[in-house]
Amino acid sequence: MPAFKTVRGMRDLVAEEAETLNFVICKARETAQLYGYKAVVTPLVEPYELLSAKSGEEIRSRMFTFKDLGDRTVALRPEFTASIARLATTALKTEPKPLRIFSVGSVYRYDEPQRGRYREFWQSNFELMGSNKPEADAEAILLTNSLIKATGLRNYTFKIGHMGVIRGILSQENVDDKVQNAILQLMDKKEYDKALELVEQEKCRTALQGLLELKGDTPFETAEKIKKYVAGYDEAEAAADNLLEILRLVTASGCPVETVEPAFARGLEYYTGMIFEVNVPELDVALGGGGRYDRLIEVFGGESTPAVGVAHGLDRVALAMQTQKTALSTRREKTAVVIPVKQELKAEALKISQMLREVGVSVEFEVMGRKMAKALEDADRRKVDYAVIVGERELKDGAVVVRDLTKHEQTTVEIGKLPEKIKG
Amino acid sequence: MPAFKTVRGMRDLVAEEAETLNFVICKARETAQLYGYKAVVTPLVEPYELLSAKSGEEIRSRMFTFKDLGDRTVALRPEFTASIARLATTALKTEPKPLRIFSVGSVYRYDEPQRGRYREFWQSNFELMGSNKPEADAEAILLTNSLIKATGLRNYTFKIGHMGVIRGILSQENVDDKVQNAILQLMDKKEYDKALELVEQEKCRTALQGLLELKGDTPFETAEKIKKYVAGYDEAEAAADNLLEILRLVTASGCPVETVEPAFARGLEYYTGMIFEVNVPELDVALGGGGRYDRLIEVFGGESTPAVGVAHGLDRVALAMQTQKTALSTRREKTAVVIPVKQELKAEALKISQMLREVGVSVEFEVMGRKMAKALEDADRRKVDYAVIVGERELKDGAVVVRDLTKHEQTTVEIGKLPEKIKG
Repeated sequence: MPAFKTVRGMRDLVAEEAETLNFVICKARETAQLYGYKAVVTPLVEPYELLSAKSGEEIRSRMFTFKDLGDRTVALRPEFTASIARLATTALKTEPKPLRIFSVGSVYRYDEPQRGRYREFWQSNFELMGSNKPEADAEAILLTNSLIKATGLRNYTFKIGHMGVIRGILSQENVDDKVQNAILQLMDKKEYDKALELVEQEKCRTALQGLLELKGDTPFETAEKIKKYVAGYDEAEAAADNLLEILRLVTASGCPVETVEPAFARGLEYYTGMIFEVNVPELDVALGGGGRYDRLIEVFGGESTPAVGVAHGLDRVALAMQTQKTALSTRREKTAVVIPVKQELKAEALKISQMLREVGVSVEFEVMGRKMAKALEDADRRKVDYAVIVGERELKDGAVVVRDLTKHEQTTVEIGKLPEKIKG
Repeated sequence: MPAFKTVRGMRDLVAEEAETLNFVICKARETAQLYGYKAVVTPLVEPYELLSAKSGEEIRSRMFTFKDLGDRTVALRPEFTASIARLATTALKTEPKPLRIFSVGSVYRYDEPQRGRYREFWQSNFELMGSNKPEADAEAILLTNSLIKATGLRNYTFKIGHMGVIRGILSQENVDDKVQNAILQLMDKKEYDKALELVEQEKCRTALQGLLELKGDTPFETAEKIKKYVAGYDEAEAAADNLLEILRLVTASGCPVETVEPAFARGLEYYTGMIFEVNVPELDVALGGGGRYDRLIEVFGGESTPAVGVAHGLDRVALAMQTQKTALSTRREKTAVVIPVKQELKAEALKISQMLREVGVSVEFEVMGRKMAKALEDADRRKVDYAVIVGERELKDGAVVVRDLTKHEQTTVEIGKLPEKIKG
């Protein structure tokens, strides 16, 4: 039988790649803890109906959809938000607001594989429900800043926009929701000409085109220009004010916002307010993004609940770290190998291994039955710190031989003092 | 639109349930670290061909199998071993032995849902490749003992058996492999009469039946009886010796082995040697189990590689912990809410929140714009430790008011001394 391959667009991660992804997942959990987000776990397989309810045609057509053995149409989640919205209307329905929810795991989209874009990828997802205030929007951006900063990435920047500005103009000009969604989807793909073609009325098209072209020298200047430009479009003006306030809050907390972009749109239909993305120069795809979605919970049968959320592409963050050669900031614990001098001492040597593990030392037990020289050579190659050699003579005195594999020195150590010797 | 439900057999986990599962996952990662197992990440969606190669009809018929948009027949992994075997013959092919590999995640089987058995469940998976020594078998059991002990569970016990004893008798009596697999599968379901019926030759059937009925007062006594009973069946005798040696090693390290069971079999076809399970009295299903599979890597086109592995049912461990009311042994960090006295101070209050998070304090920022009394009442209900109140007057002196929500005392604290005050 031949060696099997992974399914196209999916990957095996080993060594540094796996370590980096797990490190990023760990940082996402820490960020959740620091911002008071409670973890939930939702299924990876969900009813197709749930996932397709509000995700946009773009994603709907790229889901891994199938029938289970009970003839139910199900799909692999392409994102977390629908599952979290379900929770908000069921198990967490009566929880007092604000509700801060964290989840992390793999999601699935049938996209054309390319660097940083796979069919199986990892996201951490933060949702803050119950607040319509700009400080809630700011929190989604700030926690993203904290997460990316904690990974050690450099030169990352934020881009901010506001769906309310564009929707405000279109709504006041009576463009219906479906057309609005189609326009925003085209804008997300940067197909601005096609997007503008969908606006039938000329006045409206001109207004939208003018908005898209606005640009200032700083994010604040751009935001101010937007606000001035939309004067008269009441909803759009309120949205521009909201954008300015959010920008002020995140900038005060040291978040590196590079651009405010009037033409910025995101592919998911459910965004209603501020939207943002974080990028590094080394990758064409965003490391994460999110925004406000005040009407989503209603779609799932819940009470009207303002909400803001963000998802981070954790394998993209890991890829960016590897590209930037970011060192993982984990404390490296001392490691040891434990080697019995002869077969009869295996049980004793295993006991000593357990004792070391109980105080937190990472121990590889010699399971190959190799001769001492061979086992030590292997430990050296694996860059293990210490070899604990369990021999009959020393064992009679309640001791073992400890070899420092860096300094190439060895001493006899009482078993009771072994943890101290190795942990330093 | 109605509230959506999860797919049958899959669950949303919130609050304590999610926290407990994540705690167990964390303990599994720590165990991997302590035993020198390196993490890998493999796809959840795998070629059907790979997953069905050696998993046994039982599991094959219960997989979530479907075609992706590229018309590939794929399935959700029902376990990790096939994916790890693929890795061992590809990305990790040239790695020196022993090879210790860890993975953790959700797996999928279309079983009838019952307490502790769901269609989506979580496993940690440890594989040790390259050693045929009993200390390798012992390691799989010992690391399981360390993991379960670390969760705080009580009264758990191990059951050990050996496929080599039964297979040794059947092989010497010329029962072919397919029939052997069918017999072992029936034994796994405790359908011993049906299993015995499959043995055509009477001498062999009698020998097998006698073996199944052996029982001693202690695990050692049972193992000794097995050894004596199979005298003359050479392979079975070697297997019984191997079982005794493994039993000796794990018992010496304090592992609570309750039974050695001659009739013990496990459903996966690939086991060739020692097999084991760990159980708690509160659950009908095992918390974890594994064994030796010396021929699996060959099936995937690799070199002949002895190997032993174990998978732990992490959501079952979590369920057992909740049933036993095990307290999570996590260090609880201090928590705070930060509340600006008025709108204009939001940016300052956010900055103070960031400063606290940077030193590891979990901070919930007041995002609801509530009046002070209301916000404090809510913080009290959430059992937060401190409220940091950001007011204009104190801010002028570079200070804030800190309210201890347990003691109901408040003091003015310099911002620079805030971390010290809250972290204690």
